[in-house]
Amino acid sequence: MSFLHGIAASSGIAIAKAYRLIEPNLAFEKRSIDDASEEIARFQTALSKSKSELEAIRDKARVDLGEDKAAIFEAHLLVLSDPELITPIEDRIKTDKVNAELALKETADMFISMFESMDNEYMKERAADIRDVTKRVLSHLLGVHIVNPSMISEEVIIVAEDLTPSDTAQLNRQFVKGFTTDIGGRTSHSAIMARSMEIPAVVGTKTATEDINNGDLIIVDGLNGQVHINPTPEVVEKYRAENAAFEAQKAEWAKLVHEKTHSADGHHVELAANIGTPKDLEGVINNGGEGVGLYRTEFLYMGRDQLPTEEEQFESYKAVLEGMNGKPVVVRTLDIGGDKELPYLNLPKEMNPFLGFRAIRLCLEEQDMFRTQLRALLRASSYGNLKIMFPMIATLDEFRQGKAILEEEKQKLISEGITVTDIEIGIMVEIPSTAVLADQFAKEVDFFSIGTNDLIQYTMAADRMNERVSYLYQPYNPAILRLVKMVIDAAHKEGKWAGMCGEMAGDELAIPLLLGLGLDEFSMSATSILKARSLIRDLNKSDMEQLANKALQMSNMEEVVTLVKSVTTK
Amino acid sequence: MSFLHGIAASSGIAIAKAYRLIEPNLAFEKRSIDDASEEIARFQTALSKSKSELEAIRDKARVDLGEDKAAIFEAHLLVLSDPELITPIEDRIKTDKVNAELALKETADMFISMFESMDNEYMKERAADIRDVTKRVLSHLLGVHIVNPSMISEEVIIVAEDLTPSDTAQLNRQFVKGFTTDIGGRTSHSAIMARSMEIPAVVGTKTATEDINNGDLIIVDGLNGQVHINPTPEVVEKYRAENAAFEAQKAEWAKLVHEKTHSADGHHVELAANIGTPKDLEGVINNGGEGVGLYRTEFLYMGRDQLPTEEEQFESYKAVLEGMNGKPVVVRTLDIGGDKELPYLNLPKEMNPFLGFRAIRLCLEEQDMFRTQLRALLRASSYGNLKIMFPMIATLDEFRQGKAILEEEKQKLISEGITVTDIEIGIMVEIPSTAVLADQFAKEVDFFSIGTNDLIQYTMAADRMNERVSYLYQPYNPAILRLVKMVIDAAHKEGKWAGMCGEMAGDELAIPLLLGLGLDEFSMSATSILKARSLIRDLNKSDMEQLANKALQMSNMEEVVTLVKSVTTK
Repeated sequence: MSFLHGIAASSGIAIAKAYRLIEPNLAFEKRSIDDASEEIARFQTALSKSKSELEAIRDKARVDLGEDKAAIFEAHLLVLSDPELITPIEDRIKTDKVNAELALKETADMFISMFESMDNEYMKERAADIRDVTKRVLSHLLGVHIVNPSMISEEVIIVAEDLTPSDTAQLNRQFVKGFTTDIGGRTSHSAIMARSMEIPAVVGTKTATEDINNGDLIIVDGLNGQVHINPTPEVVEKYRAENAAFEAQKAEWAKLVHEKTHSADGHHVELAANIGTPKDLEGVINNGGEGVGLYRTEFLYMGRDQLPTEEEQFESYKAVLEGMNGKPVVVRTLDIGGDKELPYLNLPKEMNPFLGFRAIRLCLEEQDMFRTQLRALLRASSYGNLKIMFPMIATLDEFRQGKAILEEEKQKLISEGITVTDIEIGIMVEIPSTAVLADQFAKEVDFFSIGTNDLIQYTMAADRMNERVSYLYQPYNPAILRLVKMVIDAAHKEGKWAGMCGEMAGDELAIPLLLGLGLDEFSMSATSILKARSLIRDLNKSDMEQLANKALQMSNMEEVVTLVKSVTTK
Repeated sequence: MSFLHGIAASSGIAIAKAYRLIEPNLAFEKRSIDDASEEIARFQTALSKSKSELEAIRDKARVDLGEDKAAIFEAHLLVLSDPELITPIEDRIKTDKVNAELALKETADMFISMFESMDNEYMKERAADIRDVTKRVLSHLLGVHIVNPSMISEEVIIVAEDLTPSDTAQLNRQFVKGFTTDIGGRTSHSAIMARSMEIPAVVGTKTATEDINNGDLIIVDGLNGQVHINPTPEVVEKYRAENAAFEAQKAEWAKLVHEKTHSADGHHVELAANIGTPKDLEGVINNGGEGVGLYRTEFLYMGRDQLPTEEEQFESYKAVLEGMNGKPVVVRTLDIGGDKELPYLNLPKEMNPFLGFRAIRLCLEEQDMFRTQLRALLRASSYGNLKIMFPMIATLDEFRQGKAILEEEKQKLISEGITVTDIEIGIMVEIPSTAVLADQFAKEVDFFSIGTNDLIQYTMAADRMNERVSYLYQPYNPAILRLVKMVIDAAHKEGKWAGMCGEMAGDELAIPLLLGLGLDEFSMSATSILKARSLIRDLNKSDMEQLANKALQMSNMEEVVTLVKSVTTK
């Protein structure tokens, strides 16, 4: 057995066989061959293996995913039997006495570059088909395993370098019991996905894909950030027991579902949930969320080929507002760009997308798109307790512009006779300039919501997706705590409220500090709410104020972590 | 005549003909042809035009740039007469009755992808040669102009989208009188290059390459950020007069070359220069620099294929220290990564290089490289007044590690009997976390140097190279001024000094504010020093303190700019 350490990205324990979701290594050398007919036979075998594999995938796709997705594999099967591709490969083997891998690759590449250079969508798709089929045939020639995630039919733990949204779209969620990845941190896509699927995950192990083979028995310990490979029966037993204890603990927390959140000395804070779609509401309610602190509206815009209409948006916003039954719902206007692309907007590639043309920057320019969203929100406002916030605000001017546009749309709707309620307008504080100037902002905004995922990456100048600088993703760095304090103090001085909707708000070590700094609202993954409520009920706010004041005067993150642990772990 | 507005990147006025340094548009359509022999004749004409052009370039390169560079064009000439490439193209025209452009492009692409897929450096270079030659022949077939910057032989103003270091390396500096570009800001490579060449430049015009044709008469007004296209004789006359006035003003400033820098009420500050190589020292001395505030050592590492040795580095550092004759020289240790790549280090591509594995982050990992530089610096220390600073420090731990390594190398050298003087060890403050925590840093560092180019881009979360978010590059934003104040106050409280080596330190509008905030050292392009000295002699520090205090309480950049202008422009 062996053992890996990573970042605990989603709590719980999973025990299952490993499924490696990895691009195969298809490198090969050029070889001269003596017997061309033997080589051609080898090529034919690879073709026929590919054919049966593709047929099986097509049939399964037809059942599980529909005729649409099955058609892709049908196209691949056609390529596989196309003499215009196959004959030149066999000719090349015969004439030049080279190995099948080389003949296949070079011939296919020639067709691919020919089709790709044509200004014709259909031909470009054919290039993509040839590329996929070539990979599959090559994998059989080389005897390496090619992944077919849509074929998973037993309980597995996914092992990958990282998981992209398109990877996860292909997975049958019924069978995926856990994730472990080489790269990523608590805020990477795979981590957020794991928490929303409520399955255990350990990310950033650096070597999971190196150390784990297909079929290895894996334990993903999402509580402690550990991954066990082929553990002994004793270890498996220990984890089964631990899992049972975890489930019991969860049952204990579940008793708090209808409670309000108070500290031991009676200070109330609000625990809200981050959601992406109306479907997430069930989790919010089951976990006792006191509101939605962040509704990420970009999911409405993703995975489609044109902008959502005002009507579609209105329906979603209304569903969430009604679902929350009068509890506050903070909607973030479109935060696209950065690592979230919308192909149909045709935005130019940027050298540093995280520092680029995104979120409010884009919305203030693409005003039609922005106004449509605002109208949908304003129309939905009478169905619940709506608050709106703008993402990525760096200057007061941006906020003033956004607010002016919102006001214009509101007046238009009112003149059309549509009911619009009074709405609090706030901002995300996720850019250092805004935290530093929070006293000026507080005079004009109705509330702040601190977005720590981005605030930390900009404050430390470290891409939170980049494993090589992940040591700089430091939520407990005194510099971050000082910025958080500036924001909260500025809000309170003007009688406004300050929340937080970054991952930090649901973090066990951060919660005591944030309570001490006076944070009013904590918004987190729904699955973290009950644990956080339980924790806060054990803390005295006045003690936490002293704790936070000490932390603010420390010189590095380690000192802060030691301080918090000395107080909270018993 | 017409007129463009951009960012004044390097002062002065240039009047000359436009030279467009632009990738030509080589798009074409597939056409069927009737007469293949006519089409082949057209192809042959393009070949022979390409041949004479290449011969001329080769001959000129031999004289101007040496046999080395000429060899590249020799290789291109060989490709041009290679029957293995030419015959299949002509066959394709004959057989498929397609236009020469298509036959050329598809045949060449096939060879290129074949050569590129081979794991052999020589073959990969052949692919590059074919690519270059294909472009040239295509340009003749299409009748579009291809740029040959090494052929410039008259005074020109370069018009480009942007200028990369490799573009500028090809330019004959004798003939380049000015630059204008579509993109970039005051801190882009082209802007910095223009200032160091002391030629006027206007960057970020957005449409220069659209609006300017080759040979247009252009005025680049680097004082006001304006570009005039085919101006009337009156405008030309006006600019000649203005240029004369500018030269007279420069002569006036030149009288201050041996003066110290004092405000009107007698407060001394130090005006130092930013340099890249020992060659820049001449400019520092001619412009009355009181020291070197930033020696960017990465130029020693660039434009070569391996790391510089300790000895090479020692010689450069010694030359600068001796050249400055006892005046302070602040050397920044290697700041590579981000937009500055070193191909021979084989660093992985990053999604957001500005937030990536660079500068001290890289040096603390690649310790051999870092220690070599530190040894060279320590050995050079006895030849002048050396101070060392680390770039991109985000946490105190990074500073402590860097300092510990420096201390180890110092002890080793001393035990080897080499003289090492006491050296002040400081840091660049260019990451928000470090500015916010400056009071903690000030207890351990000997000095701060604020790097505003990066500090602004991280604080505003806006890539300073990205035109679409350039409105967020706001040196006068009150948030930036507050961070600068935190750094200066923290230094003074511990009896340390604070300098600034970003572009902001030489900026007319920023200088009054920085003087008021108490900045001790201003390091800038050497060519800005005398103007800055003249400006500071007219300002009262006590008045500027009041000005700065007002600015710190403002809500946006525009208010600050208006405030400063109300005081300084008479």
